[in-house]
Amino acid sequence: MNQPDVLREVVAVNLGLPMFATALSDQGARVAEVDWQPPAGGDPTVIAQLTRLWGAHGDRVAQANADAVARIEAAAPRAIDVARAGEVIEALREDRVLLHSGPPIAWERVCDPQRRALVAAAVFEGWADDREAAARMLADGSIVLEPGNEHGHVGPMTGVCSPSMAVWVVADEASGTVAYSTLNEGPGDTLWFGVGGDEAVERLRFLSQQLGPTLSQLIRREGPIDVFGLVAQGLSMGDELHMRSQATGNLLLRDLAGGLAAAGAEQEARFLAGNHHFFLTLTMAAAKCASLAAVGVEGSSVVTVMSRNGTDMGVQLAGLPGEWFVAPAAQVQDALLRDGYTAADAARDIGDSAIIECVGIGGMALAAAPIVAAFFGGDAAAALASTERMGEICVTESERFRLVNKGGAGTPVGIDARLVAELSITPQITTGVLHGSNGVGQIGAGVAHQPVEPFRAAVAALAGRLDEGS
Amino acid sequence: MNQPDVLREVVAVNLGLPMFATALSDQGARVAEVDWQPPAGGDPTVIAQLTRLWGAHGDRVAQANADAVARIEAAAPRAIDVARAGEVIEALREDRVLLHSGPPIAWERVCDPQRRALVAAAVFEGWADDREAAARMLADGSIVLEPGNEHGHVGPMTGVCSPSMAVWVVADEASGTVAYSTLNEGPGDTLWFGVGGDEAVERLRFLSQQLGPTLSQLIRREGPIDVFGLVAQGLSMGDELHMRSQATGNLLLRDLAGGLAAAGAEQEARFLAGNHHFFLTLTMAAAKCASLAAVGVEGSSVVTVMSRNGTDMGVQLAGLPGEWFVAPAAQVQDALLRDGYTAADAARDIGDSAIIECVGIGGMALAAAPIVAAFFGGDAAAALASTERMGEICVTESERFRLVNKGGAGTPVGIDARLVAELSITPQITTGVLHGSNGVGQIGAGVAHQPVEPFRAAVAALAGRLDEGS
Repeated sequence: MNQPDVLREVVAVNLGLPMFATALSDQGARVAEVDWQPPAGGDPTVIAQLTRLWGAHGDRVAQANADAVARIEAAAPRAIDVARAGEVIEALREDRVLLHSGPPIAWERVCDPQRRALVAAAVFEGWADDREAAARMLADGSIVLEPGNEHGHVGPMTGVCSPSMAVWVVADEASGTVAYSTLNEGPGDTLWFGVGGDEAVERLRFLSQQLGPTLSQLIRREGPIDVFGLVAQGLSMGDELHMRSQATGNLLLRDLAGGLAAAGAEQEARFLAGNHHFFLTLTMAAAKCASLAAVGVEGSSVVTVMSRNGTDMGVQLAGLPGEWFVAPAAQVQDALLRDGYTAADAARDIGDSAIIECVGIGGMALAAAPIVAAFFGGDAAAALASTERMGEICVTESERFRLVNKGGAGTPVGIDARLVAELSITPQITTGVLHGSNGVGQIGAGVAHQPVEPFRAAVAALAGRLDEGS
Repeated sequence: MNQPDVLREVVAVNLGLPMFATALSDQGARVAEVDWQPPAGGDPTVIAQLTRLWGAHGDRVAQANADAVARIEAAAPRAIDVARAGEVIEALREDRVLLHSGPPIAWERVCDPQRRALVAAAVFEGWADDREAAARMLADGSIVLEPGNEHGHVGPMTGVCSPSMAVWVVADEASGTVAYSTLNEGPGDTLWFGVGGDEAVERLRFLSQQLGPTLSQLIRREGPIDVFGLVAQGLSMGDELHMRSQATGNLLLRDLAGGLAAAGAEQEARFLAGNHHFFLTLTMAAAKCASLAAVGVEGSSVVTVMSRNGTDMGVQLAGLPGEWFVAPAAQVQDALLRDGYTAADAARDIGDSAIIECVGIGGMALAAAPIVAAFFGGDAAAALASTERMGEICVTESERFRLVNKGGAGTPVGIDARLVAELSITPQITTGVLHGSNGVGQIGAGVAHQPVEPFRAAVAALAGRLDEGS
């Protein structure tokens, strides 16, 4: 909208600290305030690196980023099977390897809920007779820890995957990328929430021995699942696909209903119907598959991994494949916790699920899901503002993921680490909150503001790499 | 928002016809235009009736309307069975009776698509060997026509119901009201779209002999379906529940998935999954059930029936039970038609589905479904504006149906015929468009602006009734 009359009457423009504006307006002047902060928190080293990445290397990075985003957008990840993890993930063919969420970590630094999940996975595999023995094997290295992200696997929250677990196999035919994620365990006492009791292990058996094989048969019979096709529909049904994917999950269940009935698979149908988060790990595997298509685009500052293990948070860039940039994981902010719990009880931010934000959904698409904003006390306008803020750190808007609440505009896609470092705006991840020590599992939900340091470190490394090459 | 500067500079305020404003602004003056129209189109008789209904009878009508809306809002319609229509609808126990949408009508005036559906229903029942014989029986009165609304039945579009068809049985335990609607036939060649060929009749056999009994078993096994509970969720998933109810239908399918699998009901599951409008008639039966709870509240100007048969449109008020107020059915406006068809091909507005708007959803809740507005070229703001406009003719906002896109506000509920008559704002019904003569069925979709005359006639009758009593 035009506001010529207002602009003509402005006598001062204030950048940054509001106290100056207040002083002026107290004297009767009309002041336009601009929310300005010094770039990169005023750090001269980072400013110098950013200056090169926008200046001397600017064209090259821009081209590389356009290429990286085009690869992400072109990927059409389809679930082509549900399989035993040990049969499809190379690293799990070795004996006694467990995958976990987040960057690499030694057992000593693993947070409490992830420890409980790893121990339970070892018991589930039959590697140890009891949990004490399992913990000893993890401590002495006879069970090996590997970050899932280094093996095409992404897991929610504690993100543990062991060879006998059932995983979605999601592939992009054109680029040849493949990614995996465990079948979501659902609510209650489960490994993803850091609960490792007998009930959680029993559910893993149902998933691996019953639901997994049934889903595998269904996919063979009904054809592969076009994950992002369902996601695009779900975005117009109140889902942003990270905190909330139940409409999208119901679209999948609709597609599977005939096959489930034909198979007489009552227990499987009831499990799918009773798990609001069932679609989550399918979205994650598809997002990982699409992100992998961008890995290795030289010079690109597009983020291809954002991942947390409850101790550290790590980032990777398309232009620096395999290199982790790490800082301490965030405390979850603005959390709504169950009665009887306080912020002091909460584990730090955890899970591989932020891969979702790397492809333009989840926190990027909050405008699609005002009910998620409402959960945290916001409204539709707040949800829209959140998406617009995320647009400030992204390369472009998605062609395939569109927001009916934003006039059909595409979601922001392609997080540019330069913009994150410069603006100090980090991706916001709405996420569950786990108990930090007592093993009760999820105690709430909140917003994890990712640390800016890994993005700044990644920018520094990319500037160095490009300086060498020029 | 405050606009003090603007208001201070206004030198003239223009009410009504814009030509005066244009004349002033051409002379350089700033003019604030107000979209004003004389009440009731300036009709002195209607103005006099309205004056009594807001004045002398105002308190009584207000109390009655509050009571009527409270009854609508308190109703908790649940699908308790799917049954053979002839077993549950008294009028269909008689031989050779057919129900149809809209107000009462003689065969001679029945529109082409409804004729085709009635003829096909007679063939389906085996009352006639061929369509010509069936048409003769309808013409000579050996098959009797009854408006569904007079027997607790509401049907979409042509709205035909015959004794052997399967109907949802939806009941409100507290008020004791019960309503019925046929199982939705889905897309393609079907009676509801005015297509009466052999394929359409064959589908009726599947619905009555296979899907109906299976759904009846499922309800017995899984329990009654809380229709408005699902609707309330669906409103946060992009459905307004008239043009679009697929998210809500998927919620139902999710609830039924286990039972369908247990029954091995593959064909039924595939039919439900393939019919985006499956939930429509469940919403309609529930809306009729809730509206019936308000029928007979003396003095109430709340609309309890809005219904069209492609020839006439009819209205009933809570305070004048059983009395029809009728005018010619509207031509559907702003229609998007399939290639090769023009407005001249279109049948007039048809169907009982506007019962949905009587309980605060459908057109009342367009803000929930910006994608429906987008279908007609609008956006989220247009959808919100539409709901706000409907709020001008309603008694209050719903406590149970809430709009996350409107800050959690309730949908407008309880259409007050006084407000419709006074403001000349009639409910907008987004609806399908049928071919008017050649039997091809649906040729598009559009918006039916309901005629104001039946609302004015109803207001006149209510004023007369209250004058007598006072």
